[in-house]
Amino acid sequence: MSSTPWLRRDGTPRLEYGADYNPDQWPREVWDDDVRRMREAGVTIVSLAIFSWARIEPADGSFDFGWLDEAMDLLHANGILVDLATATASPPPWLTLAHPEILPVDKQGNTIWPGGRQHWRPTSPVFRTYALRLVRAIASRYQDHPALTAWHVNNELGCHNVFDYSDDAARAFRAWLQDRYKTIDALNDAWATAFWSQRYTAWDEILPPRQAATHPNPGQQLDFKRFSSDALKDYLIAERSLLRSITPDVPVTTNFMVMGESKNMDYADWAAEVDFVSNDHYRQPGPRSADELSFSANLVGNIAGGRPWFLMEHSTSAVNWQPINLAKRPGELERDSLLHVAHGADAVCFFQWRQSKGGAEKYHSSMLPHAGADSALFRSVVALGDRLTELAPVAGSPRTPARVAIVFDWQSWWASELDSHPTNRLRYRREAFDWYVALMDQGFRADVVPLSTDLSAYDVVIAPVLYVVPASLSARLSAYVAGGGHLVTTYFSGIVDERDQVWLGGYPGALRDLLGIRIEEFAPLPDNERAHLDNGLTGTMWTDRIDVTDPAVEVLASYKSGDVAGRPAVTRRAVGNGSAAYVSTRLGPEGLGVILTDLSERAGLTPDLPADLRGRVELAQRGDFRFLINRTDDPVDISALSPSAPTLAARGVAVISA
Amino acid sequence: MSSTPWLRRDGTPRLEYGADYNPDQWPREVWDDDVRRMREAGVTIVSLAIFSWARIEPADGSFDFGWLDEAMDLLHANGILVDLATATASPPPWLTLAHPEILPVDKQGNTIWPGGRQHWRPTSPVFRTYALRLVRAIASRYQDHPALTAWHVNNELGCHNVFDYSDDAARAFRAWLQDRYKTIDALNDAWATAFWSQRYTAWDEILPPRQAATHPNPGQQLDFKRFSSDALKDYLIAERSLLRSITPDVPVTTNFMVMGESKNMDYADWAAEVDFVSNDHYRQPGPRSADELSFSANLVGNIAGGRPWFLMEHSTSAVNWQPINLAKRPGELERDSLLHVAHGADAVCFFQWRQSKGGAEKYHSSMLPHAGADSALFRSVVALGDRLTELAPVAGSPRTPARVAIVFDWQSWWASELDSHPTNRLRYRREAFDWYVALMDQGFRADVVPLSTDLSAYDVVIAPVLYVVPASLSARLSAYVAGGGHLVTTYFSGIVDERDQVWLGGYPGALRDLLGIRIEEFAPLPDNERAHLDNGLTGTMWTDRIDVTDPAVEVLASYKSGDVAGRPAVTRRAVGNGSAAYVSTRLGPEGLGVILTDLSERAGLTPDLPADLRGRVELAQRGDFRFLINRTDDPVDISALSPSAPTLAARGVAVISA
Amino acid sequence: MSSTPWLRRDGTPRLEYGADYNPDQWPREVWDDDVRRMREAGVTIVSLAIFSWARIEPADGSFDFGWLDEAMDLLHANGILVDLATATASPPPWLTLAHPEILPVDKQGNTIWPGGRQHWRPTSPVFRTYALRLVRAIASRYQDHPALTAWHVNNELGCHNVFDYSDDAARAFRAWLQDRYKTIDALNDAWATAFWSQRYTAWDEILPPRQAATHPNPGQQLDFKRFSSDALKDYLIAERSLLRSITPDVPVTTNFMVMGESKNMDYADWAAEVDFVSNDHYRQPGPRSADELSFSANLVGNIAGGRPWFLMEHSTSAVNWQPINLAKRPGELERDSLLHVAHGADAVCFFQWRQSKGGAEKYHSSMLPHAGADSALFRSVVALGDRLTELAPVAGSPRTPARVAIVFDWQSWWASELDSHPTNRLRYRREAFDWYVALMDQGFRADVVPLSTDLSAYDVVIAPVLYVVPASLSARLSAYVAGGGHLVTTYFSGIVDERDQVWLGGYPGALRDLLGIRIEEFAPLPDNERAHLDNGLTGTMWTDRIDVTDPAVEVLASYKSGDVAGRPAVTRRAVGNGSAAYVSTRLGPEGLGVILTDLSERAGLTPDLPADLRGRVELAQRGDFRFLINRTDDPVDISALSPSAPTLAARGVAVISA
Repeated sequence: MSSTPWLRRDGTPRLEYGADYNPDQWPREVWDDDVRRMREAGVTIVSLAIFSWARIEPADGSFDFGWLDEAMDLLHANGILVDLATATASPPPWLTLAHPEILPVDKQGNTIWPGGRQHWRPTSPVFRTYALRLVRAIASRYQDHPALTAWHVNNELGCHNVFDYSDDAARAFRAWLQDRYKTIDALNDAWATAFWSQRYTAWDEILPPRQAATHPNPGQQLDFKRFSSDALKDYLIAERSLLRSITPDVPVTTNFMVMGESKNMDYADWAAEVDFVSNDHYRQPGPRSADELSFSANLVGNIAGGRPWFLMEHSTSAVNWQPINLAKRPGELERDSLLHVAHGADAVCFFQWRQSKGGAEKYHSSMLPHAGADSALFRSVVALGDRLTELAPVAGSPRTPARVAIVFDWQSWWASELDSHPTNRLRYRREAFDWYVALMDQGFRADVVPLSTDLSAYDVVIAPVLYVVPASLSARLSAYVAGGGHLVTTYFSGIVDERDQVWLGGYPGALRDLLGIRIEEFAPLPDNERAHLDNGLTGTMWTDRIDVTDPAVEVLASYKSGDVAGRPAVTRRAVGNGSAAYVSTRLGPEGLGVILTDLSERAGLTPDLPADLRGRVELAQRGDFRFLINRTDDPVDISALSPSAPTLAARGVAVISA
Repeated sequence: MSSTPWLRRDGTPRLEYGADYNPDQWPREVWDDDVRRMREAGVTIVSLAIFSWARIEPADGSFDFGWLDEAMDLLHANGILVDLATATASPPPWLTLAHPEILPVDKQGNTIWPGGRQHWRPTSPVFRTYALRLVRAIASRYQDHPALTAWHVNNELGCHNVFDYSDDAARAFRAWLQDRYKTIDALNDAWATAFWSQRYTAWDEILPPRQAATHPNPGQQLDFKRFSSDALKDYLIAERSLLRSITPDVPVTTNFMVMGESKNMDYADWAAEVDFVSNDHYRQPGPRSADELSFSANLVGNIAGGRPWFLMEHSTSAVNWQPINLAKRPGELERDSLLHVAHGADAVCFFQWRQSKGGAEKYHSSMLPHAGADSALFRSVVALGDRLTELAPVAGSPRTPARVAIVFDWQSWWASELDSHPTNRLRYRREAFDWYVALMDQGFRADVVPLSTDLSAYDVVIAPVLYVVPASLSARLSAYVAGGGHLVTTYFSGIVDERDQVWLGGYPGALRDLLGIRIEEFAPLPDNERAHLDNGLTGTMWTDRIDVTDPAVEVLASYKSGDVAGRPAVTRRAVGNGSAAYVSTRLGPEGLGVILTDLSERAGLTPDLPADLRGRVELAQRGDFRFLINRTDDPVDISALSPSAPTLAARGVAVISA
Repeated sequence: MSSTPWLRRDGTPRLEYGADYNPDQWPREVWDDDVRRMREAGVTIVSLAIFSWARIEPADGSFDFGWLDEAMDLLHANGILVDLATATASPPPWLTLAHPEILPVDKQGNTIWPGGRQHWRPTSPVFRTYALRLVRAIASRYQDHPALTAWHVNNELGCHNVFDYSDDAARAFRAWLQDRYKTIDALNDAWATAFWSQRYTAWDEILPPRQAATHPNPGQQLDFKRFSSDALKDYLIAERSLLRSITPDVPVTTNFMVMGESKNMDYADWAAEVDFVSNDHYRQPGPRSADELSFSANLVGNIAGGRPWFLMEHSTSAVNWQPINLAKRPGELERDSLLHVAHGADAVCFFQWRQSKGGAEKYHSSMLPHAGADSALFRSVVALGDRLTELAPVAGSPRTPARVAIVFDWQSWWASELDSHPTNRLRYRREAFDWYVALMDQGFRADVVPLSTDLSAYDVVIAPVLYVVPASLSARLSAYVAGGGHLVTTYFSGIVDERDQVWLGGYPGALRDLLGIRIEEFAPLPDNERAHLDNGLTGTMWTDRIDVTDPAVEVLASYKSGDVAGRPAVTRRAVGNGSAAYVSTRLGPEGLGVILTDLSERAGLTPDLPADLRGRVELAQRGDFRFLINRTDDPVDISALSPSAPTLAARGVAVISA
């Protein structure tokens, strides 16, 4: 990755500010107003030409760069940097007409037609040929342009086309499998094809998991998820490598979508392929919406290795694609933006600069709304620009690691939510998020980290629903505990190896010894049943029939109702200075808070926030800068931490230099 | 259109009475019973041969008219007129086997197979060739038959096949677009194809909005709706023109489906193509079911230009295609029939004469039920025939215009309910219907009118969710107000032009000056949120962040809760003797009643019903005949209006000659 | 069918005990542990090689029997019988790659791909050729093997592939129709194709009911259901006949799926084609889950003609394919197993012996769980083996007929739930089940019998929703009543003939005279409406507008609310010593209990259980053995029937020799 701050060539710290800029949607005379308003708002950077393929290459092999030259020059003349897109996000109509074989095919075998965006097969050699020719043309054209600051590969790779069931996908899937398993026998073993007469005898018998008569093979499903993520990563690498060959000094990024249930791209795995990490984030409505933003931003920051990252898209107010698209409330624009900064963002960008008057996203908010510059929203945008300028010293600061980590693993996400499981109610990300909220409520900072992170840096590691535990991971977690670490895990953890095959002998096979417990049968709960614990807590969705197998295990809470009455619900096995704890039911953030209090005390860990701020304020830290974010809709007295500015406004963010 | 009463050749006013008659479903001996019972019931007209293609043309080019000759003769001999179908409603199996290319294709690309009905592409040249050959054969055969009274083109055009995504449809769509836009650049501009790299360079790149990766282009969607309505209209014209060339004096109709959510055919646009308007109407269950019937009948009457129209189908009791098909309660058969008459119907017909013993609609009620003539239902049918005979003088009377109009516009219906909007909860027709109910509840008669109606005839014009407002309409509405008219509109009105492109500068762009308000952002509500107004009303679904921009604007109600607290909720701008009012939230019929009381007083409008009948009785008027319809399940004292018959029975209808 | 006990060659009564055994999923060394544990558990029989096609025939025409020889020998050496599968349940990848034309096609025209199981067209000649070659190879190989005890044809025929809409299916459907109707005119009459212009002129115009524009022809739908059941039966016969030709003395079975809503195979019709009836049963969660098991087992027993049958699959604990898969509670494993035995099962088998560590069903419980033999579950399995050994004398006892029968008819099941009916809320099986529960609650034993059963053996015959009543059945029921039988039927009975065509003149046409009532219109209820009866009961879903037409009819209960107020709700017509009763609304088990008490007293029938056990204990009887099954979760005092063992444990089963 590039140095920090990676985009500033003069070394002055600055938080970048900007948006996707689509001048090709507007007549030339509007552009002048655009740059004037950008300067008014303090915009420093724009992403350009993201959906301009049809404009840049209006016919096969014929390029029109005049308008883009002019836009680049205009931006540069106004001191605005350009994160220039490779423009490959959506193929133009002439291409799909000439080559319908680049169109994706859905699980049922039906074509995904043009009309929206991203209607291309990730594995199509034809698409790649055309796309890379375009990348080469753009990179060659602008390699020396002074406005060029970074490359923006494609856009939201995989947002709609990650799963393609076409024959191209089938061929690529087979090649990927051959690379992974080498022999067809190894694949048969991994997929347990002895079941249901699925044994393969040749690679070309293998298909993507197209519409089947009943539950498809889980190995096939899981590997198809892995393959699909890898196929897009491979495409990303192809664009990136071409760009590097032309402009070795211009950093390359692509905008990830770490948010909500966007689960199909393993960004922890992709991060190494970009020069700096970018992310798009849009809030889902609901009571914990801002906490979810924090969780996502936190995870992005750790995927980026703690280094600053780039918030490529979020919204100034409502989006257009939810069932009901709520406008942001006063203060939320700034609060949301600074929450990303608090977790490492050195750039705050939006989709998009000027709100479209037509097209599918014309009701998506922008920096410059339909109402124009004479609007409360644009005034908020200008104010946010001022606030980011004030916070320039923050830029470049790495995240300050917390003492607690929550492990987030795409492999377990994918595998734990496959069909034919004890319950289909389990949601992997929700479990991790519940722990995150519980930690915030108890006043702890926490890092949401990919599994590859060095865990030894953390006092406490929470790994909820760590379903996939290969032998190496089992050893790694044991070593962590042996080294004095405090591991907390939950139901449906340590169940299978990397092939989704069960560790035998009693659950959780891969963690049984470490936890000192053994479970013979899962005991999921119907929706209307509750499990009552002897500490007053109530569990839902899941229980286990736990037997304690190690005398070092302490039972922290037991069930007092139902078929598991009398059995342990929460256990902790002390191992030297370390420990391994297990939570066997879904307790929700409030219940987990109670468990956390107990576990943290035993681990000798004290909260990062004074008691009266817990639950009301989120604390984040970058370098010497502490961010206090008001999680409530009322002002909060923060004088204990910030004597000079003792009140944190509703939805406000205070930045305190340590 | 023909003279009134259009079907009677001797000039005597008469309300026609009858049904679809399908003798080809029954052995010959049943026909004699049919006509005997028809005479008993007072049947004057039947629609014949609607689904008889397979019977008339049992093999390609081979026609069998013997049975139809006999049926025509029998009906004529019994004094029963015939509305003769062109029999093209559903192609026979031999045709779809020989020409599967006439079968429609759904959005996913899958074929719609035979098995039901209406499995033909509206744009198929092959289908048209075969269908018109049949029309020609029938018209030639019966052009001089004395029973022939009207032509019934096809049947419920578009009920199932309005949206076809086949290659035929693609070709026809392109031709339609080329006709509309002339140049591909104009189309690109209209569809805002600069967004998402959708710019077309040749007509043959354009496709119907087939299954796409995400939200398809809204211009493409809206134009495909327009095209699909036009394609069926074009087919209607083809049959009609052929019929006119053979029988210039026989009026041509086709049965519209103005009811409920049947929204895909723009009947206001189709009406000019038929010699008289016909409609099918089936009630949906629910608390306002009869009011919905009134709304639909009212709209049909105004689509017909206030002239009498033909109720081609409704049901004597239960239908078969709803999840639960309720039998009609005592009195409902007559009440429903006369409600249509009250709104201009000069014919009361049913699907169908004799209940089928087999087939998909065997549980659809009929005039002569499974139970036979010895049944309460058939006795009700006979009684209704008597009542219609009594009401013969009503026939031919035009609707008497009301002083209030509700504008109903298919363009706004289609466009306002596209995806990617501030909320997907908005239902265009429900909004118009709410106003209609509110007006009835307050004792006002109202006309539900298509947008093309001359509005200057109305004191008050209510245009709810008039989303699409081209410049010309904006000017027309301003002129209406300037001329002393009182315009009432609502949220999400005046937002876009005919290309679905937003009027910039603040909402509602096209009506901003007329209303004297400006809205920077929409503020839709989540399902569980309410907006409280200072006049005690409660809004749902939508609010606006209104600024008053014109001092002439009076704020009639304000929000007192939520993010819009303190802002106007209902405004009214006086313009000379006229006014322009705006309602910014969904209030439902009760809330709108309160607003209406206020607005009508300001407009100097008094209710048409005395206070004690408001909400209990609907008033409709044709010529000198006033219809009082009991909206309740109890008797109502109507002595104030009808001294000679002072009680209106539950579900009863009284007709008073003025 | 074979003699009883059919599987024991030495004539000693024994209840067989076992499971599907899939040694091909495990390394050879595990097999030794398998047979050791089988002997520990008392396993006497296993079903072998069900999904082994790909293993047995790894390439086209190349067979590998070595591993299977070894497994057969090993089992035999350990005294374990083998129910050997024909291994045709799921075609191997090499076959579907070479012959994709064997893959089923769904209603939309999309292919069902490999990935799960059972992806083959029942009517594919190619599939049949390959499958029968495999059957021949297996049968030839093992015809003389001493372990071979029975043949297991395929597996759960039709579980996923019963409805196939491919061109193969179309061809076979046409042949089936030609065989049924002989002439196209007869088909046209049967299907009422005069409706909607569907008249066929040649057989090749006919298609399966593929995706259509609207409700497909009900005759086509119903005959396609009949055909689809027959097509699989035909396939069953093909395998069976081939097996019989090779091993005339080895009985052939296939595992039925009489359970829940598995409705598409008419097992009453299939039963004659197997040498003994086998069934798979899995419980659905819910309050009457165990009663549903009893209902299913009872029906299986009667499909088997009262002779013992084979429980081929159920589960030791949780399954994997429900949304939430609950583990069985203590006692349920034995209670469920013995409930099947109580209703005639002479074998208690499970899917599967050893829980898979991979594949789609790895979380399906087994006899030997993931946890291994050191588990509560395996100990329960061993205990169950002991209990079955104790109960060996039961083996071979036929069911003891009850005095009450509930008629269960696939024709009425299929036809009554077609679309376009008075209500889509009606569920045929639920109605029969409600009566079954009501009978149990009132202390009556009942037989759930297929329609072909000789009804004269029963004092009371309950035929709920007997929708399809051909003339011959009408005569048969009249004769039953004339002979002193007491018939009870309900709403929507006697409505249509075998062609789904309505009996005219008033409902229920085919039973009108027998019942002495006439109904002019159905009166289904909306979900939120209730019908109150004058005996205090409450009806839902349906009511009828009944007129009594015969003075011999006694009205047992009348409606006192709604549009049917004052009309009869429950009627009974005495006919000599017999009677015909009619229940016109859905009363649920509790309400039916009240009706039953009345009707049974009039029929002179007394309960089989003493009053204090009614509702708490189920009574079943085979030969001299009475089974008392605790239906509650508490112990029950059964001293009145069982002085020597006066307490029935929670979920316990007592077997008392009479």
